Amino acid sequence: MATLQAIKYNDGQLEILDQLQLPESCTFIPICNVEDAWAAIREMKVRGAPAIAIVGCLSLAAELRKLAAPETKPELCRLVKEKLDYLVTSRPTAVNIQLAAEACVKLCTQLRDNTSVDVVEAKDDIIKHLEGMLANDIADNLAIGEHGASDVMKKNATKEKLRIMTHCNTGSLATAGYGTALGVIRSLHKANKLDQVYCTETRPYNQGSRLTAFELVYEKIPATLVCDSMAAAAMKQFKMDAVIVGADRVAANGDTANKIGTYQLAVLAKSHDVLFYVAAPFSSIDFQIANGQSIPIEERPHSEMTHTGSIRTAAAGVNCWNPGFDVTPAELITGGIITEKGVFKPDQLAPHQ
Amino acid sequence: MATLQAIKYNDGQLEILDQLQLPESCTFIPICNVEDAWAAIREMKVRGAPAIAIVGCLSLAAELRKLAAPETKPELCRLVKEKLDYLVTSRPTAVNIQLAAEACVKLCTQLRDNTSVDVVEAKDDIIKHLEGMLANDIADNLAIGEHGASDVMKKNATKEKLRIMTHCNTGSLATAGYGTALGVIRSLHKANKLDQVYCTETRPYNQGSRLTAFELVYEKIPATLVCDSMAAAAMKQFKMDAVIVGADRVAANGDTANKIGTYQLAVLAKSHDVLFYVAAPFSSIDFQIANGQSIPIEERPHSEMTHTGSIRTAAAGVNCWNPGFDVTPAELITGGIITEKGVFKPDQLAPHQ
Repeated sequence: MATLQAIKYNDGQLEILDQLQLPESCTFIPICNVEDAWAAIREMKVRGAPAIAIVGCLSLAAELRKLAAPETKPELCRLVKEKLDYLVTSRPTAVNIQLAAEACVKLCTQLRDNTSVDVVEAKDDIIKHLEGMLANDIADNLAIGEHGASDVMKKNATKEKLRIMTHCNTGSLATAGYGTALGVIRSLHKANKLDQVYCTETRPYNQGSRLTAFELVYEKIPATLVCDSMAAAAMKQFKMDAVIVGADRVAANGDTANKIGTYQLAVLAKSHDVLFYVAAPFSSIDFQIANGQSIPIEERPHSEMTHTGSIRTAAAGVNCWNPGFDVTPAELITGGIITEKGVFKPDQLAPHQ
Repeated sequence: MATLQAIKYNDGQLEILDQLQLPESCTFIPICNVEDAWAAIREMKVRGAPAIAIVGCLSLAAELRKLAAPETKPELCRLVKEKLDYLVTSRPTAVNIQLAAEACVKLCTQLRDNTSVDVVEAKDDIIKHLEGMLANDIADNLAIGEHGASDVMKKNATKEKLRIMTHCNTGSLATAGYGTALGVIRSLHKANKLDQVYCTETRPYNQGSRLTAFELVYEKIPATLVCDSMAAAAMKQFKMDAVIVGADRVAANGDTANKIGTYQLAVLAKSHDVLFYVAAPFSSIDFQIANGQSIPIEERPHSEMTHTGSIRTAAAGVNCWNPGFDVTPAELITGGIITEKGVFKPDQLAPHQ
């Protein structure tokens, strides 16, 4: 069974799987320009920090392909920067799109200052750079999967098959493809070392039950869905071997912002002697931020907690607290941080920058 | 604002709040006889082990009031026993209605054998006994509330106002009125010592968001709803002073079976230095059971996790694990077990039997 492909891009035609319609229906929608991408990201038709960056960048590539080149390179730079600045405002916590935007702006500046490149060539180079992200991200995820799987197997060398818990969605639906934490799980499954993956529901947006469960069923990976409240009971009853989660942003010291509920799983893993891993591309590490306290945490609409579709699930008038993310302190990441460059202890990230 | 009254009984007229319609609408329905009660319990219009027992017994009282006394006391006993046996079949897992039925049958036998009591007096005594349960349960809950609130205040003596987390529904909607854990919170609020109560959603059946949140909004108690995944983040961010939960059954050593997710909250409370209390009537302590390992845990239908009403919230075909309860080891109950007889360390229950 091939890995689920949620972002399709061919010759300037971008389509994404509309995650809002999962698990009811598996529908692809076209993204023609940065406005479409901004809205799709904001409405969470696509989510997951790497996927957001890639859909944003590919939407810009698709738009640039259709545009005639501006008169001058400075005009081209301004145009590209303006569109990237706009894309970055779609979701505040995810760092990848911001880093991708910075890299693209840097390339623009280099091309502007390179007198041997004209504006048409510069535009083509920018498009090529943006389009290259898809393949690069998949390659990075495959490397994350291999590094992570071999580390988890090494640290559980006496066990024939492993039980892994994961949170939220970090698979093909959150990345360019394959996934980060779910990529590690895919690699364990390919290596015939996976007994069972326990995926949490991930309230209030149900990314686990809607998206991760969808991917796992799609690829026939042995999986059990649990409510977020059942994590500790499951760790105790099923003797989990590792918890592996993704990251929205990792600070320089290894503190990790990820989907709300991650911190709780890390505390529970520690108290049940279960290894806790974060899997993320190296680009999710923000060396500008010393520790997790400086990572901004998005608060999301109360309606996510009070309604499921049109059905009210909470008493009218109740106040809600709905942070989208939380921060897991580095010391709870006992397994390590799995990147495409290898698996590192949280305090050993900097030398590999 | 008066405490929410979900069971109303006056002179043989019984009405209950239909919990199936919460939180959409607050509708009372009449219960005229044991058949009405049986159906309301079976359909979960009323739930919570104490509330089930009381609605069953009051329906019998209402029915007996309307009936002429039978010719003889043995006939009266047979009639009462038959109706109680029938009521007990409504939810076979709830133990309180069974204990209430046994107590009532015992009274019938005593009255039958007491030659100084005629059949009319015996019938009146049975009615009085059944009707007394409502007031007794509320009195026990008020005592639980007072004992619990004073213990929590004593252990947080330096704090002006307290932040309390609770799980599931243990209030007027689960008991005769006032509640156990939620009774303690009501008492803290009455004493003007409550800053905020954080109530968990309590997946998958949403007793927290549907029922507890409804009670808190109804009585204007300052409350914030959080998802089960947010408990640790909330403990860290808001500096919780205590977690107070109910109990389905407490073993002789203090191990406590309660709604799934309770064990997890206890682990998180310990790691955040937050006091963890269980509040329950003394009758919930099962001295026949040495420890929590012997408490049977009900597994519930997967549909609770995969659907909200008619809306599918989990990928089709995914395997689920849906235990209704978990067991919290006594050593995690750091605050104590709050009963109508006082607050006890888990290992000090037996002497008060």
